[in-house]
This record gives sequence, C-alpha cells and structure tokens, in this order.
Amino acid sequence: MAEVPRVQLLLTGDELMSGDTVDSNSALIARELAGLGLTPCRRVTLGDDRQALAREMSTLASDANVLIVNGGLGPTIDDLTAAVLAEVADSGLEEHPDAVSHLEQWCEKRGLVLNAANRKQAMLPAGCTLIPNPVGSAVGFSMVVSGCLVLCTPGVPGELRAMLPIILERLRERFGITLQKDILRLQTFGLGESTAQQLVVDNHPDWPEEVVLSFRAGAPQLEIKLSVTRAEDRPLREQCHDWLQSLFGDHIIGEGDTRIAEAVINLARESGITLSCAESCTGGMIASMLTQIAGASDVFPGGFVTYSNALKQSVLGVQASTLESEGAVSEATVKEMVSGALDASGADLAVAVSGIAGPGGGSAEKPVGTVWLAWGDRQRVETVCLCWPVERVLFQTMVAAAALDVLRRRLAGIDKQSSYFDQRRMR
Amino acid sequence: MAEVPRVQLLLTGDELMSGDTVDSNSALIARELAGLGLTPCRRVTLGDDRQALAREMSTLASDANVLIVNGGLGPTIDDLTAAVLAEVADSGLEEHPDAVSHLEQWCEKRGLVLNAANRKQAMLPAGCTLIPNPVGSAVGFSMVVSGCLVLCTPGVPGELRAMLPIILERLRERFGITLQKDILRLQTFGLGESTAQQLVVDNHPDWPEEVVLSFRAGAPQLEIKLSVTRAEDRPLREQCHDWLQSLFGDHIIGEGDTRIAEAVINLARESGITLSCAESCTGGMIASMLTQIAGASDVFPGGFVTYSNALKQSVLGVQASTLESEGAVSEATVKEMVSGALDASGADLAVAVSGIAGPGGGSAEKPVGTVWLAWGDRQRVETVCLCWPVERVLFQTMVAAAALDVLRRRLAGIDKQSSYFDQRRMR
Repeated sequence: MAEVPRVQLLLTGDELMSGDTVDSNSALIARELAGLGLTPCRRVTLGDDRQALAREMSTLASDANVLIVNGGLGPTIDDLTAAVLAEVADSGLEEHPDAVSHLEQWCEKRGLVLNAANRKQAMLPAGCTLIPNPVGSAVGFSMVVSGCLVLCTPGVPGELRAMLPIILERLRERFGITLQKDILRLQTFGLGESTAQQLVVDNHPDWPEEVVLSFRAGAPQLEIKLSVTRAEDRPLREQCHDWLQSLFGDHIIGEGDTRIAEAVINLARESGITLSCAESCTGGMIASMLTQIAGASDVFPGGFVTYSNALKQSVLGVQASTLESEGAVSEATVKEMVSGALDASGADLAVAVSGIAGPGGGSAEKPVGTVWLAWGDRQRVETVCLCWPVERVLFQTMVAAAALDVLRRRLAGIDKQSSYFDQRRMR
Repeated sequence: MAEVPRVQLLLTGDELMSGDTVDSNSALIARELAGLGLTPCRRVTLGDDRQALAREMSTLASDANVLIVNGGLGPTIDDLTAAVLAEVADSGLEEHPDAVSHLEQWCEKRGLVLNAANRKQAMLPAGCTLIPNPVGSAVGFSMVVSGCLVLCTPGVPGELRAMLPIILERLRERFGITLQKDILRLQTFGLGESTAQQLVVDNHPDWPEEVVLSFRAGAPQLEIKLSVTRAEDRPLREQCHDWLQSLFGDHIIGEGDTRIAEAVINLARESGITLSCAESCTGGMIASMLTQIAGASDVFPGGFVTYSNALKQSVLGVQASTLESEGAVSEATVKEMVSGALDASGADLAVAVSGIAGPGGGSAEKPVGTVWLAWGDRQRVETVCLCWPVERVLFQTMVAAAALDVLRRRLAGIDKQSSYFDQRRMR
C-alpha cells in the first residue's frame, strides 16, 4: 500500500452553525473511510460565507492529500461550493454538459420543467470531474488543487450516502489502496462499554495489537468492533472473535446492524413460533420495535397496550383481586398478563411488562424505574424484577429491549440470564 | 450592546473523527448561544492529538474573542485539554485546590475513593478560572489567551448542558450583552418547509426584516422560529405571529418543544375525554408516542396492536366478511376497528390505521405507502386514505403522527383537514 493519504473535511451550511441541524454527515463519511483504513485528521465547519469558505478551502487543500467538502451544492444563492472551488482553483465556472443532461433527466422523470435555479447546479468549475448523484439533482465534482484532491459532495444525507461508494473507489485508485480495513461488527445487549472492556483486559492480557477492539455505545445496544487492516491477520481476528464468544456470547445479538427485534423475529420464524406482548409501562414500544422490522407479520399477530387496570382485567383477564392485593407492578400481575396475552392472541410465546416509568408514581417500596417482566409459553413462565431509574423514554427503551432479549434467550435456548440482571435486579 | 464578540468552537475526541460518535454538542452550544444573539462563525474538530490541538487552539484564539473548547477533560491520558491550554498560554499546570475539593466531594457522595486518575482532573493551567460542574467530576475552566476568552467544557452532553448557563452568564458580563435574542418557537405538523416559506413570501411580501423567520425540519414535525434581538421589536413579532396564525394556524401544535402527542393528551385532559387506538401498520407506534408523554395514563386506558386479520376479528370485532370483501387496508375495516377499539377500551374517542408499510405487500391498486385512517366517537367517524411511499419506519412515524393529528383536530374542534391531506390523498 502506498503512503496513507492525509484526509480533511470541510462542511458548510448556516444550519450547521446555528444548531438547527446536527451534523451526522461527517460521521457517515468517517465510517465509510474507515473501510479504506483512513481517518480524517481535521474537520472544519463554516456557515455559508463565501470569503471564509474560500480562505478555508485554500488552507485545507494546501495541508492535505484529500479534502472532502460537504454541502453547498443546491440551487439557491446560499449554495456556494462550486463558485468557491472555482475561485480557489482559479478556473472560472462553466456549464457542464453532462451535469445539464443529468438535471434534464432528473426533472423529466418527475414531470418537472428545468428552471433557472436548478440549471445553476450545472455551473461548475472548469475542468472538474463529475461525481454522479444516483438519487438527487445535484451532481458532485472533484478537482485537484495544489496537489490535493478536492471532492465536493451534497449535504442531503441520502444523496451523500449514494455517492460515497463512487468516492471510495476513486480514492482507492488514486492512492493505490489495495488493502481494505476489514471490520467485524457485533451487536450486543446487556453489556456496558467499560464492563466489556475490563472483561477483555482481565481475561486476555495477550490480546494481539493487530486486532483493534473498539466499542460504539447506543441505547439500547452496544456495538463491538474487531478490525484488521491486513488480510493475513484475519485468522488472529477469528481467534479474538472466539474469545469474545466465550466471554459474552449470550449477549451477542448478531453481526452487522442486527437489531434485537430482528434477531427475535428471525429466531421465531426459524422455529415456527409466534409471539405476542402485553405492555403497561412500555406503552406499545415492544410492539413498535418488533413491527419496525419488515416481515414481523410472519411471527407477530399482535399485542396489547393495557395501560389502565380496567384494560388489564377486560382484555387480558388479570384478576381484580390480584391488582387489589399485589398492585399493577407485581409478579402476580405480569404472570396473569402473559397468560392473558397468550389466550387473546393465540400466540405461542408472550412477554409482559408492568413498571413505573416516572417521573411520578414511585413509592419507597417501588421507586420510579421499578419494572416486573414475565415471559413464557403455556408450560413455563419466568419472571424478574429490575430497576432502571432513568429518564422516562430511556426507561421505556431499555425495558422494551430487555423484554425482547428475554424472548431472544428463550427462543435461542439460552438458560443463562443476562449479566445486567445482576446489576438491575430488585429482588 | 457592545460589539458582537466573534465566537469559535474547538471540539476534540478520536470518537468524533472515527464516526463512532455523532457530534450533538456543537448544536447544543449553538442553540444556547443564539439566546445571546451569537452564532459561532467557525468550528474545528480534531482527534486527541496534542500537537495538532495546540496549533489549532493557538490559531483559533488569535482570531476570535471567544473560543469554546469541548471535550478532553476526563481522567485518561487521551484527555489533553488542560495540558494543551497550559502550553498555549505558557502557564504550566498546577493542582487547583477548588477542583480537588470538588473531586473529593463528588467521590464521597458516590462512596468512591479519589484515585490518581481522577486527581489528574484537578491539574489545570496555572491562573485559570474554574467553571463549576454541577453533575460530573470534571470541572471546566477558562483563561484569557491573546485577548481571547478560552472556555474549556466537558464532552459528556449532560455535563455540558449543566455548565452552559454559567458560561452564558460569563459571556453576558464580559461583553456587556444586555439584550437577549428572543425566540418564539412554534411546532407544526403537516407543513413542508418550502411550502411554508412560499406561503409567507406570497402573502406577506412586507415581512419586517427585524423579525427573523427560520425553520427546523424534523420528522414528523416542522419547527418555525420567529426571532427578534431588540425588545422594541416584540410588537412587530406579535404581528408576524398573528400572520402565521391566520396562514396556517390549524397546523400549529403548540409553542416551545410541544410534541403532537403532548398536545393531544392536554386537549383530551382539558375536555375530560379518554382515547384509544387500534393499530395495524403502525404496530404500536401511536400508543408508544402517547405513552412517552408523562401523564398519558390520565386519558389513555390503552390500545390494540392488531397486526393479523385474526386479531382484528377476535379483539376488535371486525367482520370476517369485511376483511374478505374489502381487504384489511380498506375504509370499512378501519371503521370497524375504531368501533371495536371504542368498545374494547371504553374510551370516548379512538383512531384506527391499516396500511402497507412495505417493502413488500403492495399491489397496483394499493401500492406500498397506502394507508386508511378512521377516527371518531360513538356518534361520528371520519376517514381518509393517504399515501406516503417512503421507507418503512418513516412511513410508520408519519402515519402515527397523522393519526394523532386527526385526534388533535377533532379535540380542538378544527373542522378543516390538514393541507397535507390534499397532497397525500388517494381517493
């Protein structure tokens, strides 16, 4: 592999400076560049200010091999990128015939007439190379300035995403990047980042430095990444992967972008088992997580949001005496909710949750964050009481994910309970 | 008001460069600064590289009145901000007694022993001024370098948020900022950004330049902002607010951060009306949006996720013959779903949705994105058929929000249907 090119980013847009838009594009670009073993070393964000943009573009180009510019390709007068690059490269602007025909086709497909504002998007620095835009009206373009390859890309995330593979290919060619960083991503639930890291350090002090271990925390999942940059290190990574499997394999939901609901649906489909849920404190979030996955209807006939005690009785057949003596947040209630959900849905396996999402409604015995879960089939129902004293929506998210995780473990035949149960268990 | 200070931002963290973390802190800072009428003019993001940080901090400080540094205050060796500022200011590091006592108290409260790593967080540039951290272990600090006020803040969003009011107060004092930008934010549903803008331009060509109109698009809501910087312009803004009310008042959900579910719950509570929902394609998202709002239980006894035809029949009493002759995605089905939801929940008002979320399941007559909605009470049920041919989860989000919006209009006594119905209507 040739010398690693130095990559910088320049983002432009008043909405990025005012805080109206959170910049997710630079993370997207960085994650794609990681596939080539590249990390941007500097990123500058500016508003739509022509002078400031020109000065910055010139400085960045003189200090890098690659400059990716994002934003400012649209049809309005605030969209300055082409003019600024033409100024910095001292090339002038000219109408680019291929960009015009792209615009014409784009408008035609949508039954629109090409207007003057749109046509401005074909006025590009003279001598630039186009970057096709498979999904939008604004083409990208690139040009070499002071020895730096400047690539100009659209700010609309979907258009940027569609353009990135083309850009990666050009970088690969230009810099002779033959080896590709090979990243294995594992999705987990129930592990904290620091706990996971400590477990690895304690159990594998001899972890090979060729295999880079990193984490990306999200709620509710934690992503674990294993990267190698040389093909010959793949067997080493396999070994590390095996280590992770034995350390916390029961917490691993799947590879890539697998979401916990997806894993549950796939396992259920494979075993021909149908699912239902009876929700109090999560208020529909378990059902929503399941049905966000295409094909959920194969295994999920439906679920019940029984927020009031009256509905717990009338829809799920929870006994008035149980609610009276044990309360809605109790082991007895969630067990009856499971059995009611199985009866009312005809499903094979169900989960029920009842808890105190807060901010109100807590007591000394059952503080905000307390939740009872029950799950099982017509033969065997299990229960647990946990406590997540966090903000309401995060509580609902974690509880809904935990409800899906107990289903996942049951479907996968994992008897072990998740390690977070030990930290969160109330009783 | 004195001259407006020039503000720049410097963010640091390898996780920001690798794409593992999306930077939401700079938007948070920018939105708070907007309250003082300030907009950052430039933002630079770097990894944890001491040399690069020192060079950048020095350059930025020489070109601004205020430099806000975010990140790098933690206890690990990657946390370089204090050392870098000490280098740039040529001040050296020293242990700051007030920072030590903050750390001691912080540890004591949590039953922890102050270790060497934590104690490093008290080693700060000599002569700096502390910025208290009400919620975390790392104090912030500020110092004047080359005439520029450099403020160093923690990367943990909750800690940054807690520190920002203190920082704003210091900026107000230092720069004699007496007037505060006064922003009125309106939340709307059913308006597109460009449509809204065009309506204002067409109807109010004499819009006063003292009242800045801006938009912040989110799914499903569009935020409209009206800002003035001088107290004497408030009456002008009142006039603009009135104009917006008559232009699209029925689309306005509320002020500030009001979410559509919140507006629905408040309206229902005021009128003593209870709500339910019967969901097919949204799969629990309507119920989840409602129950994410604290106090939802006052008006929402529960809802039904009837994904399969069998559950539509057994739980909601939809006729087999209706499903047979009209299909699950039909006006007749959603009408029967509403009446079943009213019966099964005992609520006063219900909404039902049935549609094709995709990617599969579409047909020529009912393409992916088609959805029937019905809503009403025991006296009067209304219906509409819309089409949103977008990605599955976005479809569910827009349909769930539309379902809440028809409830909002019904509860508020708005007879007019949303303008987006005209664009999306199928029949």
